[in-house]
Amino acid sequence: MNISYREELKELSPYKPGKPIDDVKREYGLKEVIKLASNENPLGCSEKAKEAVKAACENLSIYPDGNATLLKEALAKKYNISTDEILPSSGSDEMIDLIAKTFINKGDEIIMADITFPRYIATTKMMGGIPKIVPLKNYTYDLDGMLKAITDKTKLIWLCNPNNPTGTMVSEKDIINFLDKVPENVVVAYDEAYREYVTRKDYPMDSIKFVKTYPNVLTMRTFSKAYGLAGIRVAYTIANKEIIENINKVRGPFNVNSLAQIAAIAALEDKEFLQKCFDVNVEGKKYLYDEFEKMGLFFPPSETNHIFVDVKKNGNEVFMEMQKRGVIIRPMGGTFIRVSIGTMEENKKFVEVLKEVLNN
Amino acid sequence: MNISYREELKELSPYKPGKPIDDVKREYGLKEVIKLASNENPLGCSEKAKEAVKAACENLSIYPDGNATLLKEALAKKYNISTDEILPSSGSDEMIDLIAKTFINKGDEIIMADITFPRYIATTKMMGGIPKIVPLKNYTYDLDGMLKAITDKTKLIWLCNPNNPTGTMVSEKDIINFLDKVPENVVVAYDEAYREYVTRKDYPMDSIKFVKTYPNVLTMRTFSKAYGLAGIRVAYTIANKEIIENINKVRGPFNVNSLAQIAAIAALEDKEFLQKCFDVNVEGKKYLYDEFEKMGLFFPPSETNHIFVDVKKNGNEVFMEMQKRGVIIRPMGGTFIRVSIGTMEENKKFVEVLKEVLNN
Repeated sequence: MNISYREELKELSPYKPGKPIDDVKREYGLKEVIKLASNENPLGCSEKAKEAVKAACENLSIYPDGNATLLKEALAKKYNISTDEILPSSGSDEMIDLIAKTFINKGDEIIMADITFPRYIATTKMMGGIPKIVPLKNYTYDLDGMLKAITDKTKLIWLCNPNNPTGTMVSEKDIINFLDKVPENVVVAYDEAYREYVTRKDYPMDSIKFVKTYPNVLTMRTFSKAYGLAGIRVAYTIANKEIIENINKVRGPFNVNSLAQIAAIAALEDKEFLQKCFDVNVEGKKYLYDEFEKMGLFFPPSETNHIFVDVKKNGNEVFMEMQKRGVIIRPMGGTFIRVSIGTMEENKKFVEVLKEVLNN
Repeated sequence: MNISYREELKELSPYKPGKPIDDVKREYGLKEVIKLASNENPLGCSEKAKEAVKAACENLSIYPDGNATLLKEALAKKYNISTDEILPSSGSDEMIDLIAKTFINKGDEIIMADITFPRYIATTKMMGGIPKIVPLKNYTYDLDGMLKAITDKTKLIWLCNPNNPTGTMVSEKDIINFLDKVPENVVVAYDEAYREYVTRKDYPMDSIKFVKTYPNVLTMRTFSKAYGLAGIRVAYTIANKEIIENINKVRGPFNVNSLAQIAAIAALEDKEFLQKCFDVNVEGKKYLYDEFEKMGLFFPPSETNHIFVDVKKNGNEVFMEMQKRGVIIRPMGGTFIRVSIGTMEENKKFVEVLKEVLNN
């Protein structure tokens, strides 16, 4: 081959997908397989969203509204902000890519944690940014460490709160202290994908005031988790008008499919469903905490729908052995695994199989 | 604001969406509005695709298969190629963005036509590529002119066949002659979004042989046009394994939503629907050709589902006047407009309103 690729690609690997459930069933001769690996909503999504999608199937041939007008209007009304401060995207994955393309020049220093959501480092490298990694401290974002990592070359900071995969959070007070100290020319991309699952009262539930106070902050939210719309790809970002306008320059014209726009609007209205998801998650988390404690397994407290737990054996091997037994979790390097909180039935099956594998 | 954006963004404008149909209705007090502006399929999509999407609504909370395994398998079987030579994307829009991120370095020269699909120049500029514009000749791609534009700095050539918006095509013989002369280190991104509408026998219907013969060629196809799935965002690219692997490095893990994957598989199977769309397009094209000829309006022959026609008045004004009367078309600069071929009823309404506007 004589063609060449961008130099930045040398640093990147293609995404390695997990096995589809059907393949796992076939390979191990299993009738039932449960997947607690991707932090999906075990209750599915709002019936209202499903009905809205079904009704919209008559218009599949029509391009999406490239402006996502109705979804923006629904969000603007809910949060009492202007539609030009909102930008829907095809999941947070696309927004992270758009942010990288908007801000990151070759050689810019980009601060991020380790371990955190892997798309931050992937898109940073894709644009030639230099990742400046600040390890977690007690499994939690080390905001002081991140402040110390700032130099004249720093362009952007990725911040996931609560964090994926550790499930830990930083408080509103700590975030405000941090944002007060971040120079105004450094962009803070604040990702709150799991905000709907947070139980602690000191969490910054109203992050829109950050956007209003600090013109260098943008905040990302998603419909993939508590709203249960991961399959259809829809998320949104709130930022000041100027930032949104600039991200719009690198956005494809029809980035959010029409069914996703419709599903998101319906999902926003179903507060009962959201409450139920929250309740089931709290209950499942308590059950798993209790079981882990009985088993003597360490886990940092989680403010999300997943738990990062030290199984004291090689996590990859535990993953493989559990998969054979019909339970898919995510190995996280070393002796840690991440398990998504499922329905109580799924949680019990998970505990049963985990015990079996660990006692083997 | 103290934050700065990538220098490349200065050259880019946010996408300006057309007015939603409902807004047009409200603004002009219209009950019926027809849109022949976006080359959408006037027959909708396959009933099989709709049914498949409705059935899949039970799984909206599950992430898409990031590998699009079943869609790749369906395409591989249909075209007798390997699944690792195929990459589905969220419309061709996303694929064009992915190609730009895979290949285009700052300062690379990128050859493209004018006038052609606008995402080529937008993504080229986004990555800092230098657009080298080769004007159309007789409304058709000037392949000799493109060959002459190649220099040591040329990285990639965007080629749309048949071309949007002019509807014109270049023949298989001309493409082969062109590809024979393009240096092996120059990537040819060959976009055949409208291939299913082509009637001329000298069109290269089997473009896969280009991919097999020339390792620098990739070919993009879409489900947005003849398959009628524009709203749900799905397209695919065929190229050799090495190119696909590299594009995969800049692709988000869940780029094609789950309903789109399912709809595309069902749509592929419905050959009757595709034939019907082709027939309706041929009939509509003939009707519009006849009417344009009677009106003395020039148009280059179209091998697509749209016609590029010289209305001999300011195209923007014609667009505005037609919109007021409930027919939305696309002004193309100067005295040209582009009209999508609709159902016969829509075509007749379009002709009626066009005559009214032009005779005013």
